[in-house]
Amino acid sequence: MTDDGGTRVAVVQTVPEFGQVAENRAETVDAIRAQADADLVVLPELATSGYVFESRSAVVDVAERNDGPTADAWTSVAAETETWIVGGFPEVDGERLYNSALVVSPDGVEGVYRKIHLWHDEKRWFEPGDDVPVFETPFGRLGVQICNDLWFPELTGTQARAGVDIVAVPTNWVPEPPERPASWTMGIHQAIANANANRVFVACADRAGTERGVRFEGQSVVVDQDGLPVAGPLPDRGSHSVAVDCDLHLAREKSLTDRDHVLEDRRPAVYDRD
Amino acid sequence: MTDDGGTRVAVVQTVPEFGQVAENRAETVDAIRAQADADLVVLPELATSGYVFESRSAVVDVAERNDGPTADAWTSVAAETETWIVGGFPEVDGERLYNSALVVSPDGVEGVYRKIHLWHDEKRWFEPGDDVPVFETPFGRLGVQICNDLWFPELTGTQARAGVDIVAVPTNWVPEPPERPASWTMGIHQAIANANANRVFVACADRAGTERGVRFEGQSVVVDQDGLPVAGPLPDRGSHSVAVDCDLHLAREKSLTDRDHVLEDRRPAVYDRD
Repeated sequence: MTDDGGTRVAVVQTVPEFGQVAENRAETVDAIRAQADADLVVLPELATSGYVFESRSAVVDVAERNDGPTADAWTSVAAETETWIVGGFPEVDGERLYNSALVVSPDGVEGVYRKIHLWHDEKRWFEPGDDVPVFETPFGRLGVQICNDLWFPELTGTQARAGVDIVAVPTNWVPEPPERPASWTMGIHQAIANANANRVFVACADRAGTERGVRFEGQSVVVDQDGLPVAGPLPDRGSHSVAVDCDLHLAREKSLTDRDHVLEDRRPAVYDRD
Repeated sequence: MTDDGGTRVAVVQTVPEFGQVAENRAETVDAIRAQADADLVVLPELATSGYVFESRSAVVDVAERNDGPTADAWTSVAAETETWIVGGFPEVDGERLYNSALVVSPDGVEGVYRKIHLWHDEKRWFEPGDDVPVFETPFGRLGVQICNDLWFPELTGTQARAGVDIVAVPTNWVPEPPERPASWTMGIHQAIANANANRVFVACADRAGTERGVRFEGQSVVVDQDGLPVAGPLPDRGSHSVAVDCDLHLAREKSLTDRDHVLEDRRPAVYDRD
């Protein structure tokens, strides 16, 4: 908590080196320490490993259990800084692999979120998640999405109706479509639209750097419950972080006027569901 | 159709004068004639009447049946220019009032769309619509939304799954939240996000001008199936129009890659529906 009762939210944008897990993990720990006054630090998708895998066995080589060395490192720095952390890592659970985000509090591992909408080659090695967990924190209710999840707005709606105040989004945005300029990044538009339509905060931590010819576009951003960017977008290249004080209580007010309520004004009977 | 087989889409931004139906209608007809080479012309919400009603009887005074004088005028100019028209008007049907858009082809009235998600005082005089019609046109499948509908992304999803290629959006955007600068207009973000998530074109025709202290923010825009603005945003004040050639066939390609499909990758079993 900040002095005025607000919640300090940090997004950390890193440039992981493919497969160098110890070094990448160390960069995240240093970046969390540099934002030690944050209540919540969000790290990129697959922050420990890099992204551009070419085989399932390459994922197995860098995957960890949710009580592995990365869980230990983030638990330790979370306790040291009294910070909650949401960060992406390749998770192994028995025979299965997931593109997951670890949710860590100063008390230890609180759970994982497993990416529900996998993208492209991820479908070759990861299983999709099936759960939409809500984490109760001292500063509010926390939900998680990973990258491509942002493009399926029914997920943010589901989270908002479950009471989520802030969605932490570890991401690895790439220019889409690739021939368009990166400044058109649609991830930011989806974050803004989802936040604005549901009155939730959305904090996106992207990676930067080029890996095996794929350029990741940075531009990490925190968007408030009106849909307005309140921190970032960070530059489209390089390691950076930014923090901002957010009044998460504003996400509890779903009335826009005395006659308009963003959740109650839906018309579920009109929508095609499947 | 343009010479290259594309579809010319025009958005017309007017400044209606409250209650001056004949003058407002004449302005729309002149503006349609000025875009006579368009295949589709989109006009603002409640283009014939203005917006800021203070009583139900004031709506009754300017409401028309869907075969009334506005239907006649738009049918006539549609035939003359060989253009499809989607334009907003206050509709009366028996005892009921709707915030509707008339859909007119060179052959006559094709139907109406009745706003599904009413906003604020509209709920005092209009009934909400319950239908999501799809109009088959020579240039593709046409859907309609009106203003606040854009904030409920399940509607665009419903339309995309019904095969809609382009959503025409008569709108009356006001700065929201009012203390923020108009350039943050969330309507554009919602249009971009909806287009990009579903690979449909979205053509928003807004009004401008100030009526009874409410300032409408213009910025009419056509967004392509990638979510990129291809015409506009128009200025935030004044009467303007713009047209752009669109390849609506691109909206039929829902695959982003050989493994990613914007409609099939949804996870309906995971979303809370109600």
